[in-house]
Amino acid sequence: MLQPYVEITRREEFSAAHRLHNPGLSEAENRTLFGICNNLHGHGHNYAFEVTLGGPVPTMSGMVMDLNILMGILKAEVVQQLDHKHLNEDVPWLAGRVTTAENLSVAIWERVAPHLARHAGAKLVKVRVFESRDNFVEYRGQTA
Amino acid sequence: MLQPYVEITRREEFSAAHRLHNPGLSEAENRTLFGICNNLHGHGHNYAFEVTLGGPVPTMSGMVMDLNILMGILKAEVVQQLDHKHLNEDVPWLAGRVTTAENLSVAIWERVAPHLARHAGAKLVKVRVFESRDNFVEYRGQTA
Amino acid sequence: MLQPYVEITRREEFSAAHRLHNPGLSEAENRTLFGICNNLHGHGHNYAFEVTLGGPVPTMSGMVMDLNILMGILKAEVVQQLDHKHLNEDVPWLAGRVTTAENLSVAIWERVAPHLARHAGAKLVKVRVFESRDNFVEYRGQTA
Amino acid sequence: MLQPYVEITRREEFSAAHRLHNPGLSEAENRTLFGICNNLHGHGHNYAFEVTLGGPVPTMSGMVMDLNILMGILKAEVVQQLDHKHLNEDVPWLAGRVTTAENLSVAIWERVAPHLARHAGAKLVKVRVFESRDNFVEYRGQTA
Amino acid sequence: MLQPYVEITRREEFSAAHRLHNPGLSEAENRTLFGICNNLHGHGHNYAFEVTLGGPVPTMSGMVMDLNILMGILKAEVVQQLDHKHLNEDVPWLAGRVTTAENLSVAIWERVAPHLARHAGAKLVKVRVFESRDNFVEYRGQTA
Amino acid sequence: MLQPYVEITRREEFSAAHRLHNPGLSEAENRTLFGICNNLHGHGHNYAFEVTLGGPVPTMSGMVMDLNILMGILKAEVVQQLDHKHLNEDVPWLAGRVTTAENLSVAIWERVAPHLARHAGAKLVKVRVFESRDNFVEYRGQTA
Repeated sequence: MLQPYVEITRREEFSAAHRLHNPGLSEAENRTLFGICNNLHGHGHNYAFEVTLGGPVPTMSGMVMDLNILMGILKAEVVQQLDHKHLNEDVPWLAGRVTTAENLSVAIWERVAPHLARHAGAKLVKVRVFESRDNFVEYRGQTA
Repeated sequence: MLQPYVEITRREEFSAAHRLHNPGLSEAENRTLFGICNNLHGHGHNYAFEVTLGGPVPTMSGMVMDLNILMGILKAEVVQQLDHKHLNEDVPWLAGRVTTAENLSVAIWERVAPHLARHAGAKLVKVRVFESRDNFVEYRGQTA
Repeated sequence: MLQPYVEITRREEFSAAHRLHNPGLSEAENRTLFGICNNLHGHGHNYAFEVTLGGPVPTMSGMVMDLNILMGILKAEVVQQLDHKHLNEDVPWLAGRVTTAENLSVAIWERVAPHLARHAGAKLVKVRVFESRDNFVEYRGQTA
Repeated sequence: MLQPYVEITRREEFSAAHRLHNPGLSEAENRTLFGICNNLHGHGHNYAFEVTLGGPVPTMSGMVMDLNILMGILKAEVVQQLDHKHLNEDVPWLAGRVTTAENLSVAIWERVAPHLARHAGAKLVKVRVFESRDNFVEYRGQTA
Repeated sequence: MLQPYVEITRREEFSAAHRLHNPGLSEAENRTLFGICNNLHGHGHNYAFEVTLGGPVPTMSGMVMDLNILMGILKAEVVQQLDHKHLNEDVPWLAGRVTTAENLSVAIWERVAPHLARHAGAKLVKVRVFESRDNFVEYRGQTA
Repeated sequence: MLQPYVEITRREEFSAAHRLHNPGLSEAENRTLFGICNNLHGHGHNYAFEVTLGGPVPTMSGMVMDLNILMGILKAEVVQQLDHKHLNEDVPWLAGRVTTAENLSVAIWERVAPHLARHAGAKLVKVRVFESRDNFVEYRGQTA
């Protein structure tokens, strides 16, 4: 029997330092490409991110997925790994990527997807990362 | 003549109590399934919800639909029915559903859709329900 | 040596049900006094509260008080006691009080003050309770 | 080689006056159609708008587009044109349109699209305009 | 018997146009003094304002004052008078004042104070006016 | 003649990295005192700060002080000095202080006070620094 398809979103926050810098480029190229975001000692943000899952709503539970399980995955796999850290220095699973919000959204997708796959029914739909109130990015697992 | 297609959203809020509880399950099953949300005397939220309509923008009015009409429908059909109420006890049109945000989004969709149907041009596109700043759900009238 | 006097504030949130009802009054008197807030089955809110301490800033630490200690006290003494509860039914230390935001601010003050007293230097200055975005109250330990 | 497709959003704000009024209609028709929004001397808002671009994320930069360039375009083409202005009186590129949020979202799309077209890779996806916290519209360059 | 002294705050919002202009000054003086805020056709804001009352908390009601009464006064005396209006043109009780946020806070104080005086116990303490998220003013009935 | 005394507040934001670390203490003492905030490579925040001035409201201007002048001082003296910087490494006027929010509020006060002193009438009243939505500090130029 068909059930309503609903998307659920959980938001979490963490505070981290980062520096936009590509070690494969010269210092001058980095400064040109990244401007003040390339500052040697880095800067930082109160990041927020939202993870959205979609799935049918079973009559028995009325829930796409228990939000406490989702929250637990996000805290263990993302918040505790990134909070009060330097994204370029302290996070093995970000190594080799320029630490832009774009790459962060892709890395968070890749990090949480396998854990969600164990929970039948709900599917990862979207990761949104806010670097500030005025700048955010969104990744839906697509390529171009 | 083709006109721009624009989606308009109105946000409203209400304060209500609820308890996640399925009377078809045992007390132990309810506690396992819903955790602290199953607390006997209930808990509550300042709920917010957003209703999104889409349609062409006529040159004469520049409006998809008069937002005051939409606001009036949402206040009469949703806010006045749910505000300062207990969702499990006081709301006939929620009877028989576990009062999760997922089911609430579907019930609000079903409740406002017939009233919007009387207003030519705009079509209901989305209902979003926020249970808190960090948890929200979205329903687009789809099944799975 | 005199040091700068600074006030620090920590904000926490919880979701709870309540009902404005004074058992010493008749049902009619309760309805007149509290209006829709007297609804039999209660309603609820996402409450937020802010606790403000003031004290000198020592040169060594640069902190009035370790915010993690303050956060721990607020979580143990307030959030875990009130979150996902019915304020009239489930909270012994609110018994005998009408569960208005005013009384809640006084009760939170009384509850956290003894725990803060053990931490030399900082003094409790203010408790603010938000029942919604548009309504909040503030208590500074004063009488009138 | 395929790269992740990510959407980036920049939010800006401006304060402006406007009046909903169609000079092709009679005064009575305008009052009926637009209600208090037709008030002779106008009213105003702190408008916010979000512009969303989508494109592949190159490995070298990790950015869909330099947000500082996007910010520069939005400030020059929109904010400096509309901030502290009367939308009906002071803005040539809004002339001939009823100054609703719907028409504003279309006009902002038309205004920024040519400037973004010069930056290879990223494509304009969405313009969202907030007239207030509770009312917003969204245009994706579509017709109906 | 002494009772806890608590301050309660109610927040309301309205959308209005205004123009900073002193008719007693020349046009050049106005432009120098008020800059872009002197724009001939005006601009506008989503204003928010908070009214704070203080008083003892009686045991019987647990309320400094019924917030619904306060809300009613603010809606009748302020919101309905200013919403969707031009502050320089449409509001007799603002006539003769430059329509800055400072003067608005004083005028709102003067406007609501007599209505609150009829409700024994609570005293007007503070009026805060937000012109935007980043600019606000506060008046406590004092002179200098 | 006495005029109304009003306080005006301007809010600004910046993004920075920092590390809580006192070079006069051992590494173990630093870890004990500052916990995860002592992380070697630092972390970061989207800081916000509010500067409040108080003064009489002259009839001619209706303004305590031109907010554009205040904004200019805050951008030149604080935002451009701290935005996209590491507070421990890049800011001479923070040298020798543990970079807590408490010390930051005192340093911002000391930095802006001389510039405000040149503008007759308004007096610096308060500096508030937000490290996150849930943690903020406030300094009023007092000692203890």
